[in-house]
Amino acid sequence: MESKLIAPSDVKKVAVVGGGVIGIGWVLHYLRMGFDVTAYDPMPEARERIASMVNDTWPLMEDLGLRPGASRDRLVIVSSLMEAVSGADVVQEAVPEVAAMKTKVFAEMDQHAPAHAVLMTSTSGISMTVIQSESKHPERMVVGHPFNPPYLVPLVEILGGDQTSPETVAWARDFYRLNDKDPIVLEREVPAFIASRLQEAMWREALHMIAEGEATVEQIDISVRQGPGLRWAITGPMMNFHLAGGPGGMAHVLDHFGPTLKEPWTRLVAPELTDELRQRVIDGCDREAAGRSVAELVAERDRCLVAIMRARDAIQIPAVGGSSGSGTGVHS
Amino acid sequence: MESKLIAPSDVKKVAVVGGGVIGIGWVLHYLRMGFDVTAYDPMPEARERIASMVNDTWPLMEDLGLRPGASRDRLVIVSSLMEAVSGADVVQEAVPEVAAMKTKVFAEMDQHAPAHAVLMTSTSGISMTVIQSESKHPERMVVGHPFNPPYLVPLVEILGGDQTSPETVAWARDFYRLNDKDPIVLEREVPAFIASRLQEAMWREALHMIAEGEATVEQIDISVRQGPGLRWAITGPMMNFHLAGGPGGMAHVLDHFGPTLKEPWTRLVAPELTDELRQRVIDGCDREAAGRSVAELVAERDRCLVAIMRARDAIQIPAVGGSSGSGTGVHS
Repeated sequence: MESKLIAPSDVKKVAVVGGGVIGIGWVLHYLRMGFDVTAYDPMPEARERIASMVNDTWPLMEDLGLRPGASRDRLVIVSSLMEAVSGADVVQEAVPEVAAMKTKVFAEMDQHAPAHAVLMTSTSGISMTVIQSESKHPERMVVGHPFNPPYLVPLVEILGGDQTSPETVAWARDFYRLNDKDPIVLEREVPAFIASRLQEAMWREALHMIAEGEATVEQIDISVRQGPGLRWAITGPMMNFHLAGGPGGMAHVLDHFGPTLKEPWTRLVAPELTDELRQRVIDGCDREAAGRSVAELVAERDRCLVAIMRARDAIQIPAVGGSSGSGTGVHS
Repeated sequence: MESKLIAPSDVKKVAVVGGGVIGIGWVLHYLRMGFDVTAYDPMPEARERIASMVNDTWPLMEDLGLRPGASRDRLVIVSSLMEAVSGADVVQEAVPEVAAMKTKVFAEMDQHAPAHAVLMTSTSGISMTVIQSESKHPERMVVGHPFNPPYLVPLVEILGGDQTSPETVAWARDFYRLNDKDPIVLEREVPAFIASRLQEAMWREALHMIAEGEATVEQIDISVRQGPGLRWAITGPMMNFHLAGGPGGMAHVLDHFGPTLKEPWTRLVAPELTDELRQRVIDGCDREAAGRSVAELVAERDRCLVAIMRARDAIQIPAVGGSSGSGTGVHS
């Protein structure tokens, strides 16, 4: 089948379908990127909510830096799905997480969007294979899953369903990269994708701990924001352990702490640490290290940690995490 | 029993037992805080490793700001456990995570440390009740679990064993607060405490995904550092969801996303979302919010996010997470 896609750099108009927290976040991002944006939500009160959040957050967008021509005046809040998508080059859907609703919305968008338009869903975990199942042009439908707030957090997870064309997946990756996002492309459909699965594992363990009286909500937040959360913002979880391993890196960690996988240190049962898994983890860390020694990586992490803690301190606000301690201890 | 403890502000000399990554990290922290520090590790090569890491990292400690009188010249690397702890007001143990070894080391430290000294273990998850079980003065022994690197990350988890006195627990909290740490005190012994349990849940889910070919090591790191990890460094996991809920906050999230707890979105089975658990989570978020509306908290989070991403950008190093995208998209 011949591709109808236009170049990602030729996109002029983006439609956002759904006016909740994520939909409005996308509106802000695409306005900042310099597009004409149409927004649609069936709820009558959504019009006012979209307009006021865009106005309230626009100074931050200006502070971040607008693309040439970007203006909040280029937002049009419309009254029908058809009106929203009919002239759009890209549609970013963000309706509630209900598979039947998304499937229906995609079938309807498919009828009214131009032939070249790419239709993306913001779903956190519903299968694209399901979402595209009642549409006539499923090949142009793809997951583009953002993280809240979409106007700031760089990650977008991209994956297709069974009927999505590889071209559409590549197109979505290029489009997001052109527009200040940091996309990762999943090779397989996995429920909840990658980041949300990791988040969900932590969220469930936290809920178990709260339910059992093992920790309070506040302790959980402080423990993450003043502890491993700081490192995750710099290294992610895997490289974090690589850096904790001393000169031996991840190999040392797996050989040294591998036995703790059998401890009841979470309610989640660990996989068998086979030689193959061990090697795959070590190889991945080596690829990320790209020739840098653990000592070099540690020095980079430390400089980032100091910069992040100073940046938080400079904000001069009460800690959202409710920290009761003496601050970060990092002084300029 | 009458307390022999001195005031936390009267501590002059700290002993660090164990010269691995964590032990040396503590040495750096306590030197920066202006203490005399003795360090001991039984391995012959440790002396050189401690000295060289202290020297390499000292410029960063100077950059952070030294307490009056702080000097790396106040480190003495000694040749026996007895010599290390005999004049110490505080001992911070950081030997390998082997319960029998820690139990033996504590019994020996207990013989040689002054009667007023508080003995802390850096264990990530071994029970203090076990560690103190062969000592004559178990009441002065307490967990002070740091996060790597201890000279930067503020969190310390504090908890006692069955024989630890409540005074010792309170003393440890006050001592860490005086010395630029952000301690949390656990009411109960839970394997792996709080932050490491959350970290372990995520780590196990990540290993499962790598083992099954659902994600690569690099995708896991990018997904966290460019996605939820950024938010966790600011809000922690619970307030993060409170802020994602719009004006309805956590209550809206639980009512809206509660059903996803039943989805196979991680290998960890969720707890039943009872009315009691629901209310406990909402109440905790309300306490953390301390009267601030979701809109106010979102504005704070956004300013922090921008500050953190700019701080990372300013470091001007290749991303440790190996990001292949176009950067954070945040420009000054």
